[in-house]
Amino acid sequence: MDMFTVKKRQDVLSLLDETFHNKKIETETVDLLSSVGRIICEDLHSRENVPAFRRSTVDGYAVRSKDTVGCSDALPAFLNIAGETRMGEGTDLTLNSFEAIYVPTGGIVPSGADAVVMIEYTEKFDDDIAISRPVSQRENIVGIGDDVTENEAVISKHTQLKTQHVGALAALGISNVSVYKKPKVAILSTGDELVDVNSELSIGKIRDVNAYSLNSMLNVMGCEIIMQARIKDDFEKIKETLEKATSQCDIVLISGGSSVGNKDMTPEIINALGDPGVLVHGIAIKPGKPTIVAKVRDTAVFGLPGHPASCIISYKSVVEPFIKYTLLKSQEKERFIKAKSGFQMHVSSGRDVFYMVSLDDSGDEYVAHPVHGKSGMISLLSKSDGFIEIPMEKEGLQIGEEVRVQLFR
Amino acid sequence: MDMFTVKKRQDVLSLLDETFHNKKIETETVDLLSSVGRIICEDLHSRENVPAFRRSTVDGYAVRSKDTVGCSDALPAFLNIAGETRMGEGTDLTLNSFEAIYVPTGGIVPSGADAVVMIEYTEKFDDDIAISRPVSQRENIVGIGDDVTENEAVISKHTQLKTQHVGALAALGISNVSVYKKPKVAILSTGDELVDVNSELSIGKIRDVNAYSLNSMLNVMGCEIIMQARIKDDFEKIKETLEKATSQCDIVLISGGSSVGNKDMTPEIINALGDPGVLVHGIAIKPGKPTIVAKVRDTAVFGLPGHPASCIISYKSVVEPFIKYTLLKSQEKERFIKAKSGFQMHVSSGRDVFYMVSLDDSGDEYVAHPVHGKSGMISLLSKSDGFIEIPMEKEGLQIGEEVRVQLFR
Repeated sequence: MDMFTVKKRQDVLSLLDETFHNKKIETETVDLLSSVGRIICEDLHSRENVPAFRRSTVDGYAVRSKDTVGCSDALPAFLNIAGETRMGEGTDLTLNSFEAIYVPTGGIVPSGADAVVMIEYTEKFDDDIAISRPVSQRENIVGIGDDVTENEAVISKHTQLKTQHVGALAALGISNVSVYKKPKVAILSTGDELVDVNSELSIGKIRDVNAYSLNSMLNVMGCEIIMQARIKDDFEKIKETLEKATSQCDIVLISGGSSVGNKDMTPEIINALGDPGVLVHGIAIKPGKPTIVAKVRDTAVFGLPGHPASCIISYKSVVEPFIKYTLLKSQEKERFIKAKSGFQMHVSSGRDVFYMVSLDDSGDEYVAHPVHGKSGMISLLSKSDGFIEIPMEKEGLQIGEEVRVQLFR
Repeated sequence: MDMFTVKKRQDVLSLLDETFHNKKIETETVDLLSSVGRIICEDLHSRENVPAFRRSTVDGYAVRSKDTVGCSDALPAFLNIAGETRMGEGTDLTLNSFEAIYVPTGGIVPSGADAVVMIEYTEKFDDDIAISRPVSQRENIVGIGDDVTENEAVISKHTQLKTQHVGALAALGISNVSVYKKPKVAILSTGDELVDVNSELSIGKIRDVNAYSLNSMLNVMGCEIIMQARIKDDFEKIKETLEKATSQCDIVLISGGSSVGNKDMTPEIINALGDPGVLVHGIAIKPGKPTIVAKVRDTAVFGLPGHPASCIISYKSVVEPFIKYTLLKSQEKERFIKAKSGFQMHVSSGRDVFYMVSLDDSGDEYVAHPVHGKSGMISLLSKSDGFIEIPMEKEGLQIGEEVRVQLFR
């Protein structure tokens, strides 16, 4: 494979999908309260009708609607109070003609009744109530299965569960759900210059920023980081660690060492572990061009650029969609914040260009401002809210043009 | 206090802010990798210059720029190679006139040099290199402190940390951060009709959905649920549990029992625990009107409606802003997804009306569709992506009008 035969990002994502769509991610059962953010691996069906009994939506009196026909303030309908049902209890009561039975909101509507009159339209006289407004059939009643019928699919396979789903599932008595296991990831940082984040910096050293960025992004994505290592630029050591990582993980991320420079061993090392090895070296994105995509055993291996902002863009634009759509088969599209561009730029790079932006929402609409500065790597990271993409077909961006901002989380 | 003197939502949030703005939330130090989603309680300053040494942004040769003036392909500048610096190492080398020193990307630029020539514009001849393109002063060099200077505030107090901040802080060697402790919350569900989510439903019973919805929303918000109880409609039992909860928690949520009905004991019980007790009973929101806001000891107590969708809206529109802005002092505005309304409606309720919607993004723009159905509580929860607000000043919504969707998470 040629070095730096740059591929379009969409083609890379398709290739990843073709290569790994059969890769099996195991499933597990988790408690409903731990399920937020997880992706379910089967359709969830209701085992019952909801509601399971006819339920009143108001505090009032269950009646036969025909007994209220024509009543008014001037000419109320008088019905005999035949009892009451209670919240949380069944009832043996049956309603007969010209009877009314008190029902609380959410309470069971006794058989024989076909409507509930709101208490506001009744007045009590000893054993009778006077009703001043007629009700129609089924008024203020939710029927059996009106919300969900037995066996109905309530949430479909491959949905990423959100908080509101938790409520729906709790209502159905589904307290455990089958989800895809968290993909297992190794993060390998390579480079003689890298030191631990806790280290004081001696000259020439830089801290291993990408280990932290990647770890936190993967965590938020729902992955499990089972291996994290920092390795000197040593062919054998990297090879050995990569071999171990690929035997244990679904995904291995190698950060650093992917530009064509002095110490560019990553593709060689990957290929040394056997076929097919490197699938792509160079993606038409900016930043992030020197990204490597590879397959070792059944593991997806990504070589990410060492520059922290490039590493993040490469991860967000290639690795994250792969995890979300190919591995976990999510059906959910990315949601973007629409904003006006607060800046103008010309690009004609033949690449998808990503720009980190900050969002200003002081006015009626969001405005996206570029975050930059001379190699302002930390400023880039600390001041941006997200990023925009200018696809390669576009020649640039006008001030005021609509852009879609993908927020960092 | 009058029952159901309905207050505007903005006034309720202001009242909460006045009442609780002095409430102290403790702080704690957490590891950087556990900090995503937490809100920092102090400005974070850089303890050092970044970069701490002059760094090359390219692979190439450090030179004096004046030695390259006027050079070209036809007339290259020849400089003597005086050594190399290595990635991750300092250097004792000093560059003299008409010398060049090899520097890798990210490597230290030796003293005496004021620019780096990219390797692409050089050709090596034994001990010399020929340079075919002139460089200007500081070209391809990031100076000391160019990114961040010592003592500069990098991330300001009250920022909710996101994944990109983790990278910035790692770069600065900040591996622990001071954050507000997770607010402690109790969730009390009241109602004779409530049963555990795992229970089979006998007639008249419903599962305790709100316990699950609230728990998951609070978790995502960064709260710690330290107490969760389901209590029958029994004045003394509720009072006893509420007393215990308010002595241990920053926030107590009571779900159910807040409509003016048969068993509406919540406000009475709250007031029985002492002044000031109930501050608000009834908020001009739909759904969610019967929401109670109270103060017991130094604890914020909320009575939320029992209907699961109303409970969620009440929580999202009142409790969540209180936690985020009053307690945790977040500076971050809510980010909305802008969409076109796919429906038309007239409202003139004198309330802020909330509508659960699903988002369609099959075309160029997002379209928000209403999710409803006859008391379709579970459908409401399972099919919606978020909600929109129609503020009380507005009389309705036109098809195609822009709406702001707050996504469920």
